[in-house]
Amino acid sequence: MNTDKRTEIATLGEFGLIDHLTEPFVARNASLVKGPGDDAAVIDTGADDYTLLSTDMLLEGVDFDLTYFPLKHLGYKAVVVGCSDIYAMNGHPTAITVSIGVSAKLSVEDLDDLYSGIRAACDDYGIDLAGGDTRASVTGLVISISTVGRVAKEKVTYRSGAQLHDLICITSDLGAAYLGLKLLEREKIALGGVPNAQPRFEGYEYLLRRQLKPVARREVIMELEAQGIVPTSMIDLSDGLASELLHVCRQSKCGARIYLERIPIAREVHTLAEELHIDPVTAALNGGDDHELMFTVPLAMQDKVMQFGYGVEVIGHITEESMGAALVTPDGSNIALKAQGFHGN
Amino acid sequence: MNTDKRTEIATLGEFGLIDHLTEPFVARNASLVKGPGDDAAVIDTGADDYTLLSTDMLLEGVDFDLTYFPLKHLGYKAVVVGCSDIYAMNGHPTAITVSIGVSAKLSVEDLDDLYSGIRAACDDYGIDLAGGDTRASVTGLVISISTVGRVAKEKVTYRSGAQLHDLICITSDLGAAYLGLKLLEREKIALGGVPNAQPRFEGYEYLLRRQLKPVARREVIMELEAQGIVPTSMIDLSDGLASELLHVCRQSKCGARIYLERIPIAREVHTLAEELHIDPVTAALNGGDDHELMFTVPLAMQDKVMQFGYGVEVIGHITEESMGAALVTPDGSNIALKAQGFHGN
Repeated sequence: MNTDKRTEIATLGEFGLIDHLTEPFVARNASLVKGPGDDAAVIDTGADDYTLLSTDMLLEGVDFDLTYFPLKHLGYKAVVVGCSDIYAMNGHPTAITVSIGVSAKLSVEDLDDLYSGIRAACDDYGIDLAGGDTRASVTGLVISISTVGRVAKEKVTYRSGAQLHDLICITSDLGAAYLGLKLLEREKIALGGVPNAQPRFEGYEYLLRRQLKPVARREVIMELEAQGIVPTSMIDLSDGLASELLHVCRQSKCGARIYLERIPIAREVHTLAEELHIDPVTAALNGGDDHELMFTVPLAMQDKVMQFGYGVEVIGHITEESMGAALVTPDGSNIALKAQGFHGN
Repeated sequence: MNTDKRTEIATLGEFGLIDHLTEPFVARNASLVKGPGDDAAVIDTGADDYTLLSTDMLLEGVDFDLTYFPLKHLGYKAVVVGCSDIYAMNGHPTAITVSIGVSAKLSVEDLDDLYSGIRAACDDYGIDLAGGDTRASVTGLVISISTVGRVAKEKVTYRSGAQLHDLICITSDLGAAYLGLKLLEREKIALGGVPNAQPRFEGYEYLLRRQLKPVARREVIMELEAQGIVPTSMIDLSDGLASELLHVCRQSKCGARIYLERIPIAREVHTLAEELHIDPVTAALNGGDDHELMFTVPLAMQDKVMQFGYGVEVIGHITEESMGAALVTPDGSNIALKAQGFHGN
């Protein structure tokens, strides 16, 4: 390791590290239509459709805790995460590869559970297991999934296409997966060392489902197709609305205004947030793990997208770049969005 | 985790785990030409060429040790491993995605070293960085690389096509990467705690290079193409000759005879093996990490492959399945090949 000079990774900030590492690479093959910096890479294989490729890594102790995350659900979720990346390009996933680093504490039965979840998700999303790699791990479980998809060339949707005055739309509601995680963490602490204890989850089944069995929004992509709408930009909300909206603004060279009262937050999020002394809006903006889609469409599409049967909400609009990205509160004040947390200005 | 029944993963054996986990999956999309079980998946995107996809995971403490493996070399090697998988399908790599789990002990400068190695390999093999994922790791460094390639449909080469009497060919020599690793491990122990110590590597530069800066055999694929030869089967020797030959035999439903005196072993391997009391033939058969290619061609191709300028060696031939896979010693006795080690019979 380098001992002459040491810059901590944290100093590069939210977007800094990936940019710093990938910027020196120069694309050399014409087949690479879009490289790093979107939800998936776009590859022109010479076919009518583009091929999409995304990759996600899940690490034990960082992305999941096996004391409360069942392996079957973990396998299912890992596939959903990849599918959501492909949908965010306005495409359809077709196949995955699964690499796992397996710690010695796991048995064959544990891996059967993990793969039964992977299989269930493959069934639900109509995709194939194309390959993978299995390694011993001396530490925790590592799962790396690469997802392949396809998209018609004229429909591929990037983070970079949002236009001035476009509407900002999101699917379903936000913050529920994060509160589901907080609920699981609370029960882990409460039940620590108590044998055969029953956790208290009544009334919060929705939050658990959003954390343990998320849905990738295939039906939204199909509805966009049915309505003949190609969004001007789209992104998966895996890291939270604030962070992802900042990605779109940066790449589309625009600003944004989103309205606090328009952000859809489930009743259960409000209830548990109050119990746990968490701000539900912070959960919705920064909680992440929702795997909902955010997309932008021209103003003229408003009526069409409001009629989607899948709870698409218009939460704001695209502005001039100089205005930055902000949350507008009911009293009209603007709060600048930050990748983590937000602060009044 | 599953607590009712516990089967240790080790009981499933060398090929057992992957088969056990992937067998329940049924391919549903016609686009998946070849799923798990070869060096790469084969996907039909509708283009003239097939698209290839392989994935490899490297884990700190299992696949590399950062106390003696420079990060720049690690990045380079991770790309070579993926390229070798694509060449083993008789294809050419075009792009990679790189996901890393980064432990807190690594600095930005360390990751710069890692990515400069990745970039150097991308330059050497003419491939693009297409995307990736960066996560914090609470344990060691994890690198997962997916490699995309292309191959003309009529040239795609599987593990399953070897025919009776085919010649078994390998590129370059074997065992050097394994001995290079043993050399690095010896110096790590010898120099433990000695500040500014100089390791003793003279005379063994070749072994170190094979371990730290391996070569994927692009020139062999180009030579096969130039000669108009499509091998009947091909595989990357990443896990050692014995193990990989057993893969080919199992998938091609055949047996094999390879001849001890025909296995190319570098002079430096013999010298260091003697010093370290390691059997050089065991290193060649089971050492792994060589990233050479093994391929089979019809008997009539012998003269052509022997004229390759790249040290292609004919080490044996394909037999009836009932004969099994064995190493023939100079005195004519057969030693059955095992995935790990070999035993007389």
